[in-house]
Amino acid sequence: MEVWKEYLETNKQRFLDELLDLLRIPSVSADSKYKGDVARCADAVQAAMLAAGCTKAEVCPTAGHPIVYGEIIVDEKLPTVLVYGHYDVQPADPLDLWHSGPFDPVIKDGKIYARGACDDKGQMYMHIKALEVMVKTNTLPCNVKLMIEGEEEVGSDNLGIFVEANKEKLKADIVLISDTSMISMENPSIESGLRGLAYMEVEVTGPDRDLHSGVYGGAVANPINQLCKMIASLHDENNHITIPGFYDKVLDLKAEERDELNKAPFDLDEYKKDLKVDEVWGEKGYTVLERTGTRPTLDVNGIWGGYTGEGAKTVLPSKAYAKISMRLVPNQISKEISNLFADHFKKIAPEGVTVKVTPHHGGEPVVTPTDSPAYQAAARAIKATFGKDPIPTRGGGSIPIVALFESVLGLKTVLLGFGLDNDNIHSPNEKYDVFNYYKGIETIPYFHKFFAESKA
Amino acid sequence: MEVWKEYLETNKQRFLDELLDLLRIPSVSADSKYKGDVARCADAVQAAMLAAGCTKAEVCPTAGHPIVYGEIIVDEKLPTVLVYGHYDVQPADPLDLWHSGPFDPVIKDGKIYARGACDDKGQMYMHIKALEVMVKTNTLPCNVKLMIEGEEEVGSDNLGIFVEANKEKLKADIVLISDTSMISMENPSIESGLRGLAYMEVEVTGPDRDLHSGVYGGAVANPINQLCKMIASLHDENNHITIPGFYDKVLDLKAEERDELNKAPFDLDEYKKDLKVDEVWGEKGYTVLERTGTRPTLDVNGIWGGYTGEGAKTVLPSKAYAKISMRLVPNQISKEISNLFADHFKKIAPEGVTVKVTPHHGGEPVVTPTDSPAYQAAARAIKATFGKDPIPTRGGGSIPIVALFESVLGLKTVLLGFGLDNDNIHSPNEKYDVFNYYKGIETIPYFHKFFAESKA
Repeated sequence: MEVWKEYLETNKQRFLDELLDLLRIPSVSADSKYKGDVARCADAVQAAMLAAGCTKAEVCPTAGHPIVYGEIIVDEKLPTVLVYGHYDVQPADPLDLWHSGPFDPVIKDGKIYARGACDDKGQMYMHIKALEVMVKTNTLPCNVKLMIEGEEEVGSDNLGIFVEANKEKLKADIVLISDTSMISMENPSIESGLRGLAYMEVEVTGPDRDLHSGVYGGAVANPINQLCKMIASLHDENNHITIPGFYDKVLDLKAEERDELNKAPFDLDEYKKDLKVDEVWGEKGYTVLERTGTRPTLDVNGIWGGYTGEGAKTVLPSKAYAKISMRLVPNQISKEISNLFADHFKKIAPEGVTVKVTPHHGGEPVVTPTDSPAYQAAARAIKATFGKDPIPTRGGGSIPIVALFESVLGLKTVLLGFGLDNDNIHSPNEKYDVFNYYKGIETIPYFHKFFAESKA
Repeated sequence: MEVWKEYLETNKQRFLDELLDLLRIPSVSADSKYKGDVARCADAVQAAMLAAGCTKAEVCPTAGHPIVYGEIIVDEKLPTVLVYGHYDVQPADPLDLWHSGPFDPVIKDGKIYARGACDDKGQMYMHIKALEVMVKTNTLPCNVKLMIEGEEEVGSDNLGIFVEANKEKLKADIVLISDTSMISMENPSIESGLRGLAYMEVEVTGPDRDLHSGVYGGAVANPINQLCKMIASLHDENNHITIPGFYDKVLDLKAEERDELNKAPFDLDEYKKDLKVDEVWGEKGYTVLERTGTRPTLDVNGIWGGYTGEGAKTVLPSKAYAKISMRLVPNQISKEISNLFADHFKKIAPEGVTVKVTPHHGGEPVVTPTDSPAYQAAARAIKATFGKDPIPTRGGGSIPIVALFESVLGLKTVLLGFGLDNDNIHSPNEKYDVFNYYKGIETIPYFHKFFAESKA
């Protein structure tokens, strides 16, 4: 048995307890009322880096939430792995659907329930613990740099500035990220592609004040009805998106690529049963795996307007709002799509209402090559701990920073994720299996080993 | 000068102060947290009736909020006027748009600003004060019964039961209600018709839990997008309502009725300017006055779902909701329309979502004949205090109780309203002009006088 495995075995309980402590900090980046907690979480990450053996660890202020940077340089001549992760989490609401407090982690049936358990505190912390394992057992085969940010869930607005300003410091040979999921523990997989994102907020204004729907109803454009009409028009009868130019740069997959993708184990009945839906939905002509992995989408993430309290109020409201996001695929560009959306949405505004469109944040889609030494090192690491070759998949989510690393630092990224699709990330009762947490800590040293060997 | 006018002149300030006290009670019937305040308001109305000279006044419990009944029987042989009004008010939100507290009435530029100032505390209280004026000056020419309820804003669920159980007690010759508006003080008018109402709440469920829009987006029906699509489909390109059978019982107006209706003073540019909209909206082929007075409509009164907080959350929500109401015209029947809506809405639910439809409350449309002695008495009363004949109009709002009085008590109703369309009822900064309040108290005794004479 590798010496690091023994160390892991001996320290298992402590590794878990430390993660639970981190999960107790409500580091919600989207809501300014948690600003102090986010800062506290950054300090905790810095302390963990130092405890793990980093020779340097610093909390770097930004215009938003801080970035925590740490490093251990074994030998300048050895290859360097730059680990990226994030310590901020999604808002926890709707709170009433949680079975236990989102920031009061509990372990039930071998699963850690808490906001951030999987996304991304649990997965990020595996790297800090894996580093400790390697340092304490003198098995660290390369240099490691860690960059853990606090704004991933709100668009990483300040990370680009930080990376741009610290190119020298961040010099590395590969970026390693654990913020994605596998098909299952029985079918380990590595995401070889990620969708990009464009996130918009729209405000539709009708009359300048709330009106009585009896006195004015039928004579004045109702902003909710009009917003619904505009949103409905964004998909056609085949669930294609109708924004002019939206698909212009989309790369169509080759037949063999589609075949390969659809080889991943997938049970449609199980999928529907898990979500309790009678039917799936999506763009005509594509399978579920193609839809989530390779096709751009448009979803309303939130909508509100008028009277939403108990009982009935006959109001014709002045305003209606929606948050609308689009997942992008190669070679769509987030800013271009945001502009296409904004232009189109304003153009389709019916008479009697005015429309305001504000972009929230975006990210570019990426594809990571499966034939690179880094991907191969990850595949061998998985094989070493899971006993089988991983399946390459296309993830539906977005990690905008991956495209940024490529353009600014010239670095490729390996997505070594240990989450599961049913981890309820961004939902109530987010969880992360204790098994997966330990499996990650066990696998990461193999990656460093194989990657260092490939560069030797 | 009539003796009652002198009494009114002497007691003006007190009449105003008493109304302000009543407005300070937050009698919001829709929200159960105000239950105690609603009860307190009922007690205040009872006390006011007794102070005005009622020989009997009682707070009658119901399954919901109480009904306050008072009476003064001058002589069994004289005609009897049954006054109806309501002491409950609409919810005050959105609170941040009020310039002063909704339950902290202020007088500014001759206007009383408070929730309920016009709808209906201010207008209802005019009747109590007019009664006091007539009693104290020995000029009451008929019997008066007052029935003031506390559930008008939530559908008058228990009034029907009360009326049914108290037919003998409520025996009268006419119902008199002040809960409507005039075109302006320069163009006094009387509403000769009212729209009915059907109010529905819908719940659309997609997956059984909130999902990550990146992982699942594009493969699972998003309940917000689907709700928008369903709502959008409820109107066609001419803004006709598409629910099958919806218009089947609608009485088309005769050409001469339309001509008469469109003679009411109406300035489209002023109307648009007042609402700050560039264009009006509505059913093709009808004028604004026809649309609000004679045509049925469908409006979304509230919509909500997904993430509506600060910032961005990439959630594909499990559920989306809307409150949708329809204004009805003769001879549409509220329950029938509710059923048509529910059947249709469930039928158009796309695959992948399920739909729940719950009716809130309804009311029937009514038309009051302008050639009746009661309407004529009201017209003469207006002439006596305003110096000109009132214009008969069709109101867009609903007073469900009017149809109930006709069917259960066999009584016609006169709508002697003194509000204005810009009183912001159901909106922030509801107001009622002090001038209109006094004008109402001055006009009501004339109505009693002329109506009693017509029956002599």
